[in-house]
Amino acid sequence: MKKDINIKEVARKCGVSIATVSRVFNNSGPVKESTRKKIEKIIEETGYRPNVLARELAEKKTHLVGMIVHSMIGEGLPRTINGVNDVLQQHDFNLLISCSNGSFESEMKHFEIFRSKRVEGILFATREFKKEHSKIIKKLPIPVVVLLQKTSQEKIPYVAFDNYRFAKEATKRLFELGHSKFAFIGGPVNATNAIERQQGFVHALLESGLEVEEALIKNGDYTIEDGYWKMESLLSEKKELTAVVAVNDGMAIGAINCLQDHGVNVPDEISVLGLDDTVLAKALRLKLSGVHYSYTDLGKVGAEILLKQIESNELKFEKHLIPYTIHLRESVARVKPSDGRMIGNIFSPQ
Amino acid sequence: MKKDINIKEVARKCGVSIATVSRVFNNSGPVKESTRKKIEKIIEETGYRPNVLARELAEKKTHLVGMIVHSMIGEGLPRTINGVNDVLQQHDFNLLISCSNGSFESEMKHFEIFRSKRVEGILFATREFKKEHSKIIKKLPIPVVVLLQKTSQEKIPYVAFDNYRFAKEATKRLFELGHSKFAFIGGPVNATNAIERQQGFVHALLESGLEVEEALIKNGDYTIEDGYWKMESLLSEKKELTAVVAVNDGMAIGAINCLQDHGVNVPDEISVLGLDDTVLAKALRLKLSGVHYSYTDLGKVGAEILLKQIESNELKFEKHLIPYTIHLRESVARVKPSDGRMIGNIFSPQ
Repeated sequence: MKKDINIKEVARKCGVSIATVSRVFNNSGPVKESTRKKIEKIIEETGYRPNVLARELAEKKTHLVGMIVHSMIGEGLPRTINGVNDVLQQHDFNLLISCSNGSFESEMKHFEIFRSKRVEGILFATREFKKEHSKIIKKLPIPVVVLLQKTSQEKIPYVAFDNYRFAKEATKRLFELGHSKFAFIGGPVNATNAIERQQGFVHALLESGLEVEEALIKNGDYTIEDGYWKMESLLSEKKELTAVVAVNDGMAIGAINCLQDHGVNVPDEISVLGLDDTVLAKALRLKLSGVHYSYTDLGKVGAEILLKQIESNELKFEKHLIPYTIHLRESVARVKPSDGRMIGNIFSPQ
Repeated sequence: MKKDINIKEVARKCGVSIATVSRVFNNSGPVKESTRKKIEKIIEETGYRPNVLARELAEKKTHLVGMIVHSMIGEGLPRTINGVNDVLQQHDFNLLISCSNGSFESEMKHFEIFRSKRVEGILFATREFKKEHSKIIKKLPIPVVVLLQKTSQEKIPYVAFDNYRFAKEATKRLFELGHSKFAFIGGPVNATNAIERQQGFVHALLESGLEVEEALIKNGDYTIEDGYWKMESLLSEKKELTAVVAVNDGMAIGAINCLQDHGVNVPDEISVLGLDDTVLAKALRLKLSGVHYSYTDLGKVGAEILLKQIESNELKFEKHLIPYTIHLRESVARVKPSDGRMIGNIFSPQ
């Protein structure tokens, strides 16, 4: 981990006075352009921030952790926050959260704010983890744990779901039930978790010797409404279908509503599986098949890793994948291998 | 608004040295018991906190707002946060959020943390606004706006929904459709918003000359599952029923599922209305009747009031109620006045 650097050291490295460094920071007086450039370069390299000084003046330990999330909507991140809060409270740490609404500028600003507010570590959840995130994080003198994204290449600690693997496994479970005509309703193309699930689905088909038809993959925005319209669009392709895999419950529910509006029986004619297991599914009369993974646990593990790094005062690459379970329920049926027709729901409600 | 007080003034008021005040705060040296008591009393009275000093040393404007919420789960508060964020961003302010999970101690701690982190104002959402909250807020030298609770008696600015009024009005709409046998599925008894809705329901009945049967009011925990069990419990009372009003969509959905499992037709035999309008309702095949009010707008108005008070630097009592609309949809039917039987759904899907 990068060591905190104080204003004295910055001044020494630049061969200028502390007052000059301070002037550059506060824009509070004349500084020669070449000197300013030199100081800015050292500041950039060392990651020095003026509040580090304040931090040194004040108590060393704030017992504060910052968390940056890209959204508050939906079940996932709120539950993750609850998990984080649970663990931090047990360790007498407090959590400050900020919501970036997916804006990169806002994320960057909040890294700065949290640093100036002297949090001891940061939990970071973004829609798409980028090289630029990694650059910023590596300059921080405090540990950062990334949530819900794999950062293996960048060697930044993370906790994530195994999206690719469970999507592949769940799709193969449908294949084992005799399904061979698949469609996929995916998420936004810039959402890493959605893309990983889509890849899992595609690879399950390829490994099972099935063709992947581009026209039978539709990307949407996670909502029930959009699931409905994506299902409409799939039906308009007029291709044979026995199973629809949706990236989340919302779109699976929309798809089921659409199929029922077209007089298609779920699961007798078409099986539907959502790669998710949220409270939304509980509103359906039909028990929705899905994949269960705990956001609360993910938050807890993330907080534990962060606290360990704060306490040991060393940044160590660490990764953790949260376990999952696949649940086939009433929305999925077996296809009879002999005649290719479906024989109805074989699963009792859970 | 209380003016910030610095350590010098505290020392002067107590007739002791700055060092002595500092020792009391940091527990860092011997102080005579009577002096300590005196200093603590002045600190209590003036609301002095050591970080006020740091605040005076540092820049005056942090452009930070703190928000304390009691929960992250469900649609309401996340949407409120989004509304707040929208307005703050437009004004170049940043938001730090903390989640108390309904704990009073945690709420108090976060008021302190936000203050020491020099936020310029605080938005506060709690499950049940208490006198103790009011005491703390009145001591703060920065503006606080309470969200989702009425604080009229305490003269603290607030933005809320008109729970009592819309619950009463929606119930009366059912009365106008011929309903006279009502049951109510309510929320937790310590949740002010749920209690206000329950009172609105009860008063609608009383004003319409109907009796209120205690056995036909069940309090639950907002979940679909609990709505189901509360409906079971209502059916077991073996009373005549034509309409069920539920405090939120989750419980209304649970009630509908339960009625359907008992072979009761909704709305032909029993009408169901949820005092809510969430994404959950979209998962239902039957279009749920409900009340719409915007949490996003509530967050926006709250942030606007707070910013105005920050800018004007004066605490002024102000209140704002967010408008609502009542939507009767497929889950509600008219009762024929002549024979007391229902004649089916008169509302086309919206």
